[in-house]
Amino acid sequence: MSKDGKEKNARARELYPVHLAQLVDKKLEEYLNSYTNVPQELLSPMKYCVLDGGKRFRPVLCLATAVSLGYSAEYVLPTACAIEFIHSYSLIHDDLPAIDNDDMRRGKPSCHKKFGEDIAILAGDALFAEAFALIIKDQQGSPELIKSVMAEIIEGSGAGGMVAGQIVDITTTSVKISKERLEYMHINKTARLIAASVVCPAILCGADKNTIDGFREYGLNMGLAFQITDDIIDITSNSEETGKTRGKDQYQSKNTYPSIWGMEESKRIAREKIDAAIAALNKTKADSEILKNIASFIIVRRA
Amino acid sequence: MSKDGKEKNARARELYPVHLAQLVDKKLEEYLNSYTNVPQELLSPMKYCVLDGGKRFRPVLCLATAVSLGYSAEYVLPTACAIEFIHSYSLIHDDLPAIDNDDMRRGKPSCHKKFGEDIAILAGDALFAEAFALIIKDQQGSPELIKSVMAEIIEGSGAGGMVAGQIVDITTTSVKISKERLEYMHINKTARLIAASVVCPAILCGADKNTIDGFREYGLNMGLAFQITDDIIDITSNSEETGKTRGKDQYQSKNTYPSIWGMEESKRIAREKIDAAIAALNKTKADSEILKNIASFIIVRRA
Repeated sequence: MSKDGKEKNARARELYPVHLAQLVDKKLEEYLNSYTNVPQELLSPMKYCVLDGGKRFRPVLCLATAVSLGYSAEYVLPTACAIEFIHSYSLIHDDLPAIDNDDMRRGKPSCHKKFGEDIAILAGDALFAEAFALIIKDQQGSPELIKSVMAEIIEGSGAGGMVAGQIVDITTTSVKISKERLEYMHINKTARLIAASVVCPAILCGADKNTIDGFREYGLNMGLAFQITDDIIDITSNSEETGKTRGKDQYQSKNTYPSIWGMEESKRIAREKIDAAIAALNKTKADSEILKNIASFIIVRRA
Repeated sequence: MSKDGKEKNARARELYPVHLAQLVDKKLEEYLNSYTNVPQELLSPMKYCVLDGGKRFRPVLCLATAVSLGYSAEYVLPTACAIEFIHSYSLIHDDLPAIDNDDMRRGKPSCHKKFGEDIAILAGDALFAEAFALIIKDQQGSPELIKSVMAEIIEGSGAGGMVAGQIVDITTTSVKISKERLEYMHINKTARLIAASVVCPAILCGADKNTIDGFREYGLNMGLAFQITDDIIDITSNSEETGKTRGKDQYQSKNTYPSIWGMEESKRIAREKIDAAIAALNKTKADSEILKNIASFIIVRRA
């Protein structure tokens, strides 16, 4: 690794709240070990895909938001874990041969490579359903708040959200799209669920409308910056760092920020979105140091 | 068709509340035409799979339950449509080449045959998410009731419910399983969502615990009878009647009631379950004529 790479890694470690990721890891394991009514053939791939040492970016944002509003991280853990379940489900389905056909995920064989396509499809389906079960069974808060949180997550992950972004992605492979369509794709594919990761805890913490709007703006900008840097990392980092196949987007003729805007312009846009995310925090009533650090982390991360 | 077949068809038409199915058809179409933020490439397969003239068995049960409790059918329509969305999603994923590899569904090419595997997977995912959106956005009732309804549907369709049944199905193909395992598979694969179709409206209509328990018993027995008769129909009816490939289960070495119990015994068990379903209705405070008719319909239906 270059000197610049090493410095960036050290800086990334400083910025990222690893203690929150560890809380998430522990709770995810606890949840997945608590299923007594799920056949092993289904529970094994669910565990394999969720308990795999990911960054826990979305649930960490969720916890950090609660902390920034003066609540405990533990309060929103069920919702945070639910969002990670949904993220895992989306990766399992994305990696399928019929979609992105990815053999590797987080440095190990992807779900269908390990368990077969049929089981992978169903493990994804199961995680999506169980995400909602975690919230319903375990998230504290009035039924009104729970209903709002569910609505937020469903909108972000449904036909007008994450799946819409995915559909644009797969139906425009090898077709050059406009900059507006690219942004639409990235916002829906990635940024909507990331926005839900900060909006849901804000709802659960009883935040006012301005604060919720501020968090949404933060989340959408963060999500866009996250996906742009993902596109960049796909080209610049090696497989060892990312745990994925290097240069996969280019090989598959995917529309990405670097392919449409060029590398330097993409980096500039990512920084611009991070600045906008940080600025949006000023609209909230949050003590937002930790969220600002996570925003800065996005730029310096290498995986 | 034989004389016996024709008589059965006429009797089935008498028993089934077609006017409720028509209400469901109309509302499903209205919902699917109301999506303005969903890309056409995704909305088209969603419409193709949902608006296809199915029996609407689950939503009809939902509406009939509300009516039996003195409420209007319209009151529970959003939940009824949500359950049909979930049923459609499960059929789309079941039909995929990696799972049951079915080319035909309800007399036309299955989703992946028409739109491709990638789009079919995502259309299923989208319908699952949008099912919950229908309930959250459109189902009347207090947030407490909505939360209970969501819990019921998620439990029936999640990792310990429908997906558990599916996993047992695909992992035991060509392996003879015990009668207990077969019942577990059918209960989860089919009966749990059918039970949710009567339990959810009972919850929404404020039914007492005994009534809800009675409906659950009705639903589970109905669901089991429905799946047993499905297994029987797969062997005895032709493709024209069912809209599916005849004898598919046998060809795929699936565990079914006829393959484990034999044909005559399977018919007897189906009748026994229907009798148990009808008896369970006596535990409810419902005016259950319509639900008794639907139970009898299961035995005489040919598709």
